[in-house]
Amino acid sequence: MQQYFIKGQVENPVIIKDKDTVKHMFNVMRLAEDDQVVLVFEDGIKRLARVTDRENHIFEVIEDLNDNVEMPVSVTIASGFPKGDKLELVTQKATELGAQAIWSFPADWSVVKWDGKKLAKKEDKLAKIALGAAEQSKRNRVPEVRLFEKKGEFLSELDNFDKIFIAYEETAKAGELATLARELAQVESGQKILFIFGPEGGISPSEIDAFEEAGGVKIGLGPRIMRTETAPLYALSSVSYALELNK
Amino acid sequence: MQQYFIKGQVENPVIIKDKDTVKHMFNVMRLAEDDQVVLVFEDGIKRLARVTDRENHIFEVIEDLNDNVEMPVSVTIASGFPKGDKLELVTQKATELGAQAIWSFPADWSVVKWDGKKLAKKEDKLAKIALGAAEQSKRNRVPEVRLFEKKGEFLSELDNFDKIFIAYEETAKAGELATLARELAQVESGQKILFIFGPEGGISPSEIDAFEEAGGVKIGLGPRIMRTETAPLYALSSVSYALELNK
Repeated sequence: MQQYFIKGQVENPVIIKDKDTVKHMFNVMRLAEDDQVVLVFEDGIKRLARVTDRENHIFEVIEDLNDNVEMPVSVTIASGFPKGDKLELVTQKATELGAQAIWSFPADWSVVKWDGKKLAKKEDKLAKIALGAAEQSKRNRVPEVRLFEKKGEFLSELDNFDKIFIAYEETAKAGELATLARELAQVESGQKILFIFGPEGGISPSEIDAFEEAGGVKIGLGPRIMRTETAPLYALSSVSYALELNK
Repeated sequence: MQQYFIKGQVENPVIIKDKDTVKHMFNVMRLAEDDQVVLVFEDGIKRLARVTDRENHIFEVIEDLNDNVEMPVSVTIASGFPKGDKLELVTQKATELGAQAIWSFPADWSVVKWDGKKLAKKEDKLAKIALGAAEQSKRNRVPEVRLFEKKGEFLSELDNFDKIFIAYEETAKAGELATLARELAQVESGQKILFIFGPEGGISPSEIDAFEEAGGVKIGLGPRIMRTETAPLYALSSVSYALELNK
């Protein structure tokens, strides 16, 4: 059944006001009166609802659905600005794979320079991709998309996490691959985890220092070298495997 | 250091004959005499080599490198023909994530129809993507790319695997998520594993029957619904996590 995220807290009946949502409901899906959909308000609970007034975009909320597909931990991924439109792929796939937040920051070795208007436009586009992917993969939450203009703003967020993992190629090369599994075995439900990934050129030594000072742990993600946009997908899949499949 | 796959068995000295490889070595990378690269022949061993004759594309093999990044098991992924160019993404990412073979077959619910020339052209393109990705991710092997024209040809290959996993959305919906982890715990080094994925519309009931008859086991890949091109990446990451990181 088609699912839509609705801004704000639950109301019953509810009038849908977001233009894109209205368009998709009544022009694309051609919902008629009595047709049912799933609405997800900001509390993350899925609710069955039916059209009661097509003209005025009004739904009656019928019942709560007992369907929570969120990870038991909150995973944020943060990539150094990568080239081109790689963040679009990362945003779509990371949403399908359960990320709570998709962040990106200007890393020392980022080639691209995004700021001001360009950054805001890019963030908007990514937020739309996250919304669409969250609806398709029937998430209870739309991941937050956030592009930091200054690295300092990103660094000041690090205190808010219970675990910080630094994806570091040299760690993989050194054959130290067990760290992530060892750390994930100790993670508790509800904890906030951050994975940090470098841009194409990798993470600079001074960034490694800064992340380690904030409590970050270097991890290897297997022996193969992955592109910068692939590593977050591996990390999210691993967390899901460790905490949702292999529990 | 730049790595190249070379067809055939090791020779010393070796004359590089493949046109694309020669072009990349001497036009793109502008290798000069005494420059070093890594050559990987079909035995999968990485070897340090140096240019001894730029004009005639001749290298001296210096020594074997003790660097094996292949998974301890051989993983084949097989997707029902998906729409558009999704197989290109799957091929690139599955190569980075360690697949031994990337297959695709005409599933009952595949929307696209590929045959004859079109299929051969598509296979060629995917093989080039796999080669490029294998060089970039420093693999010891280039994954085999194979597009089956008839589903029967694919089915007749199923006997060659030690384990067959059928990625089935309904299994995930039913809350049965532990199967993959339980099965991977019993896998032994060197075994051949096949993961089967449906196209966008999923796997048909008669296909499920055929795969189960061949020994296939239905698995869920977490509670979220993934697009058809995302599921193979989750599966490969999980195998790597289970057998390379969490051993």
